[in-house]
Amino acid sequence: MKKDTIIIGAGLVGSLLSIYLSKKGHKVKLYERRSDMRKEKIVAGRSINLALSDRGIKALEEVGIMEEIKKIAIPMHGRYIHNADGSTAYQPYGNDGQFINSVSRGELNKMLMNLAEANGAEIFFNEKCESINWKENKISFQHTANFLPTIINYQLFFGSDGAYSAARLNHQLQHDRFQYQQHYIDFGYKELTIPSGSNGEFLMEKNALHIWPRGNFMLIALPNIDGSFTCTLFFPFEGETSFASLDTKEKVKIFFEKTFADAADLIPTLEDDFFNNPTASLVTVKCFPWIRDNKFALIGDAAHAIVPFFGQGMNCGFEDCSVLNNLIGKHNDNWKNILEEYQILRKPDGDAIAQLALNNFIEMRDKVGDPKFLLQKKIEAAFSKKHPDKWTPAYAQVTFSPQIRYSDALKNSIKQEAIMQQVMALPDIENIWQTGEVEQMMLEKLLG
Amino acid sequence: MKKDTIIIGAGLVGSLLSIYLSKKGHKVKLYERRSDMRKEKIVAGRSINLALSDRGIKALEEVGIMEEIKKIAIPMHGRYIHNADGSTAYQPYGNDGQFINSVSRGELNKMLMNLAEANGAEIFFNEKCESINWKENKISFQHTANFLPTIINYQLFFGSDGAYSAARLNHQLQHDRFQYQQHYIDFGYKELTIPSGSNGEFLMEKNALHIWPRGNFMLIALPNIDGSFTCTLFFPFEGETSFASLDTKEKVKIFFEKTFADAADLIPTLEDDFFNNPTASLVTVKCFPWIRDNKFALIGDAAHAIVPFFGQGMNCGFEDCSVLNNLIGKHNDNWKNILEEYQILRKPDGDAIAQLALNNFIEMRDKVGDPKFLLQKKIEAAFSKKHPDKWTPAYAQVTFSPQIRYSDALKNSIKQEAIMQQVMALPDIENIWQTGEVEQMMLEKLLG
Repeated sequence: MKKDTIIIGAGLVGSLLSIYLSKKGHKVKLYERRSDMRKEKIVAGRSINLALSDRGIKALEEVGIMEEIKKIAIPMHGRYIHNADGSTAYQPYGNDGQFINSVSRGELNKMLMNLAEANGAEIFFNEKCESINWKENKISFQHTANFLPTIINYQLFFGSDGAYSAARLNHQLQHDRFQYQQHYIDFGYKELTIPSGSNGEFLMEKNALHIWPRGNFMLIALPNIDGSFTCTLFFPFEGETSFASLDTKEKVKIFFEKTFADAADLIPTLEDDFFNNPTASLVTVKCFPWIRDNKFALIGDAAHAIVPFFGQGMNCGFEDCSVLNNLIGKHNDNWKNILEEYQILRKPDGDAIAQLALNNFIEMRDKVGDPKFLLQKKIEAAFSKKHPDKWTPAYAQVTFSPQIRYSDALKNSIKQEAIMQQVMALPDIENIWQTGEVEQMMLEKLLG
Repeated sequence: MKKDTIIIGAGLVGSLLSIYLSKKGHKVKLYERRSDMRKEKIVAGRSINLALSDRGIKALEEVGIMEEIKKIAIPMHGRYIHNADGSTAYQPYGNDGQFINSVSRGELNKMLMNLAEANGAEIFFNEKCESINWKENKISFQHTANFLPTIINYQLFFGSDGAYSAARLNHQLQHDRFQYQQHYIDFGYKELTIPSGSNGEFLMEKNALHIWPRGNFMLIALPNIDGSFTCTLFFPFEGETSFASLDTKEKVKIFFEKTFADAADLIPTLEDDFFNNPTASLVTVKCFPWIRDNKFALIGDAAHAIVPFFGQGMNCGFEDCSVLNNLIGKHNDNWKNILEEYQILRKPDGDAIAQLALNNFIEMRDKVGDPKFLLQKKIEAAFSKKHPDKWTPAYAQVTFSPQIRYSDALKNSIKQEAIMQQVMALPDIENIWQTGEVEQMMLEKLLG
């Protein structure tokens, strides 16, 4: 049965969800608080470039739009590490042919909005959700420019309005015993830009995710199709070396030249951008339940906001859409059953990727510069190549293996890490790691 | 310097805090959302009787009011266990002379309000906190009966308004990166009453906390000075045996007669009370920060709401007052330093007692009926008696040892539990536990 469906939030997940639901024949209206980004210059400075990987790609392929998206995606085959001493190193993300894709959030969102409309969805902009009447299935919006109210009825309703979801807040306020958690890490981020060269060329290796790991903080850079790189500094809010302490242009200049010398040379507007661009915070949100009866569900960041360090926020949200779509088929349009199973399936996966993303922050900022850690990854990679049926590295499980649930990837990664701790504790591991004894030990531990 | 001090919430902690601050010379006004319980009949049915123990007693003694409170306290020397088969057992809480005290929440609160006023604090009732202007140090209240607004200035401000604190919400709404977590367990509680006998006598052992442990749920009963017992049923909200499933008076009667036979006989108004009294929920709240500058702090449940299973909610809140009071002396009225150290000291202790309280739920409802668990407690008690400097049981650390911080008690309890798991895994432990080998093993593990 075709339903009058309302989606709050025309971001990446809301737009994709509208395509899925329109294709099923539902009449979809998207309500977006912001203005239409396709008609205005995007406000600079708060977007980390996205890393589109296999879970997201699978969801885009299912509705036949991946070919279109590919036009704005740049493959990144590995991490390009810029060490403090000026040396560099390269770590492939996976096997040959495995890569993630740098995509501009703005460009991707615009393209998804166009595809949403092309599939029959209507998008209403500048509409802020004010309140929800759960008994009468009505949502009240106020226009952010002319302040006019709108009240609409829904038969089916999704909240895909992000980490600070208004749909979730209204759900929470009228729900007994709502489980809720918001956790901020002590680090914020700031966007900076490395422009293209004078002929539009890339000034660093194009097909890689660049990282400057510095122990307690890091800078990253992802390529854009115009030859520029979007850089993001992940940095403590407070402390000796922090956003609080870098309080003059002079200090920023000296700090970057000393700490990120090769990057500093490539960011001509560094000091201005540092003070003009906002410092954004990083939150993990967990909540439960995600659904109401047969009528409402949270999806994407609104259900499970995570930190960006595994590059999975968008991919997870897109996978939500794909899972939901499969359940529509399975339960034959019985929305009570669809939403209940959606929640049962996805809540543990949302919790798991939240944890994996926090863990990866430590790996990226701290460990990728550590020779011992690099050896560990090398041993894992060699073992995995020899026994692909027995060992897939955690990164690859999350990034390149949509058939493995996040919750299973987390469990596997904990087991693997315990084994690798024992391997790395072997005396003289640097020299013996290619021996049969080490291989045998790993095989035995895997059985245990 | 004497300060105009506002406390929101004239519950147990707010009232006691006002006594502490009045004694230091501050001009204290308490604003309470409810009406004056001293003038009205207390609404039945939502209070678990309190177990006042050494941390709370220490705080009451410091302001010289424990002698007064003793008049309404009934010592409970141990747990009196009512098994499903009709047998009973008794577990002392600690050594001779160690006990906790059953106190009626209502009676204690009334007494503390009287003492607050006697010490110079003013209490304003029916005043609901509407908003807080943190920049101008103003709080807006609205009277719950005549709806008149009041705006007051503060120099110092405490939020002691409980788990659903309005002070905390206003603090949160105007705070960047506020850490917040609310977690409900799947169990609720309901108050029931065992009245006194026809001559005002107690119909069960007076000086004990009665427990009917039944695996997944439990009933408890605490004595009142009038000869009655306040009973509390802790019970799943949903499921086969739950508040949801006991939906007729007939079902309640049959269930109680079968499950709590000896208690059912003593609760004449069981079925009526079961449906007239509300089913209350059990929440743990964690947040951070608890303070603002030199002017504001959360205290008691408003800072750290916990489940009631260790009988520490009030005791922890009273200890907050005592810790704060010591810091006032230490920092010589420098409120920036006082509040900062208060938060640094008490946040980990609040987190620890929250965890201990959740753990104790499982112990009370499930383990206290288990012979293996009882043996474990016996072994611990014997070892502790022989080596009092080396081993204090976790319950005694929390309940009878105010000199041990909650955070240390939690750490110790984890270590002890790990040792006891190894002891209990010894073959034939039932027969060998009094041997020197077991004692020696425990001594060695303690060193390791």
